[in-house]
Amino acid sequence: MGLAIVAPNKSEKEIANWIAVFNELDPGIDLQVYPEVGRPEDVEVVVLWQHPKGILKRFPHLKLICSMGSGVDHILADYVPDKVPITRIVDPRLTYSMTNYVVMGVLNFHRQILRYIRDKRSKTWDMSQPEIPITVGVMGVGELGGDALDKLAGLGIPVVGYGNRPKADFRHPYFYGEQLKAFLDKVNVLVCLLPLTEKTEGFLNSAFFQKCTPGTYLINVARGKHLVEADLIPAIESGRISGALLDVFQQEPLPPEHPFWTQEQITITPHIASITNYRAAAPQIIENYKNLLQNRPLINQISKTQGY
Amino acid sequence: MGLAIVAPNKSEKEIANWIAVFNELDPGIDLQVYPEVGRPEDVEVVVLWQHPKGILKRFPHLKLICSMGSGVDHILADYVPDKVPITRIVDPRLTYSMTNYVVMGVLNFHRQILRYIRDKRSKTWDMSQPEIPITVGVMGVGELGGDALDKLAGLGIPVVGYGNRPKADFRHPYFYGEQLKAFLDKVNVLVCLLPLTEKTEGFLNSAFFQKCTPGTYLINVARGKHLVEADLIPAIESGRISGALLDVFQQEPLPPEHPFWTQEQITITPHIASITNYRAAAPQIIENYKNLLQNRPLINQISKTQGY
Repeated sequence: MGLAIVAPNKSEKEIANWIAVFNELDPGIDLQVYPEVGRPEDVEVVVLWQHPKGILKRFPHLKLICSMGSGVDHILADYVPDKVPITRIVDPRLTYSMTNYVVMGVLNFHRQILRYIRDKRSKTWDMSQPEIPITVGVMGVGELGGDALDKLAGLGIPVVGYGNRPKADFRHPYFYGEQLKAFLDKVNVLVCLLPLTEKTEGFLNSAFFQKCTPGTYLINVARGKHLVEADLIPAIESGRISGALLDVFQQEPLPPEHPFWTQEQITITPHIASITNYRAAAPQIIENYKNLLQNRPLINQISKTQGY
Repeated sequence: MGLAIVAPNKSEKEIANWIAVFNELDPGIDLQVYPEVGRPEDVEVVVLWQHPKGILKRFPHLKLICSMGSGVDHILADYVPDKVPITRIVDPRLTYSMTNYVVMGVLNFHRQILRYIRDKRSKTWDMSQPEIPITVGVMGVGELGGDALDKLAGLGIPVVGYGNRPKADFRHPYFYGEQLKAFLDKVNVLVCLLPLTEKTEGFLNSAFFQKCTPGTYLINVARGKHLVEADLIPAIESGRISGALLDVFQQEPLPPEHPFWTQEQITITPHIASITNYRAAAPQIIENYKNLLQNRPLINQISKTQGY
């Protein structure tokens, strides 16, 4: 099998880990790693993460495109050859990490840990209002959003889901599409786990914030492009949004001059909410290559029209 | 019924809330509030929180002693008349708050939020080691400890319980009594939810820390007296303990000169992990008074010899 890894932003160590697992799973594998792809005609499977634009045109015998992570927006944003299927990674460990990050963010708002960290600096003992009552809205109710809803509900926290399309018999209260305002009225903590598509890019903007319950807390763990960053600070200053926990940004690493660094109500983490684990991910790619050869259905294939 | 509330450290507003609920539940109630207890001989039920030492000697017709919270150590530390039963509050909302505080503390260590808050001040983007692997040990596996174990396990976090006595068929891995070292070897996050008794006072001390897995993180949400405070800072400085989230202290409010305020690895909250809700608590007291009159078993009665 001819496989190429094209992930120029991953560290050498990370790439070495992926190579080791591929070799372990299929010792006969013909592996090329970008930028050293000397025989593009031998590449049947590409494994991509933030690849250089247009590179897929270089592989005439491509049969399968695999995202190295759970998102595929980085692939769909570029030229994709017709008829070549795209798969993503579904990793229970990735779901575990994402959910626990979200639960942490929700509880830190609910129990106001940032306030107590500030109070410590001034040696202030203030027992007033130890809990902010919350209802959590999760936008995007696929693998990750569904699990976040389940785990939050399991802790006794009221939850509501929001998605693109109607869902029959969803296991939590659910709103979709045009029902956005009704959804936002019910919640004061918002978790963005939407897929990044043409429809959801810039979804979190001034008009959106205007519809939020005053004092809503925002957690964005999906993609930086969901948020119109310039709109967030005015929304916080007006009190409409009380603060935010952000793991993803338009530009990463977040540039030193970015105003988010110094906004007191914004907590920043460096895109670590969930990290794809090569041990879980690589076998899924090998399995799909074998599925393809034997005409069996692929696992974790995405719809190019829906974008997820 | 003659009832006296003796809770000199609670605010006037809080006491007014309790009085309102008692009057609502039993309009014929004969209510006296310390320090204005003019007719001590009429008191059959005392409702206590941090009462003045020796005060129970003043009530010759006492039939029932009720703690206003989930702990009874404040009662057992003082003179208690023979044969008068003691009850505590069991409140699902109190359990909810306690568990969510514990989960927050565990996840903040697991996902290192304090590190990212520090990194933000220096505009540092550091993606390395985004998760510290954890196994959480919960000491005290009653109502509160058991729920914390259930909810942490529900999030996929490995857990182990520790208690005073053997427990047949406990639903989580469990150690007791002399098995302390074996328990500590398995865990690197410790949650103290022990009852405060003669046996557990000062349980968290130098000798205990010596037995911990290096780098163990400590969460104390039980009582300040469980921890020998002077022993914690050396344990942190030596690296044996990597940090602590403390909600309770030997002296509360924590005095301004206390070294915990300025210890970087200690997070402080002002005894707010769980607050007894008078709406849930007062009916349990009235119910127990009626149980007593009608010779029915009391709810939430504690054992004076066990201390919980």
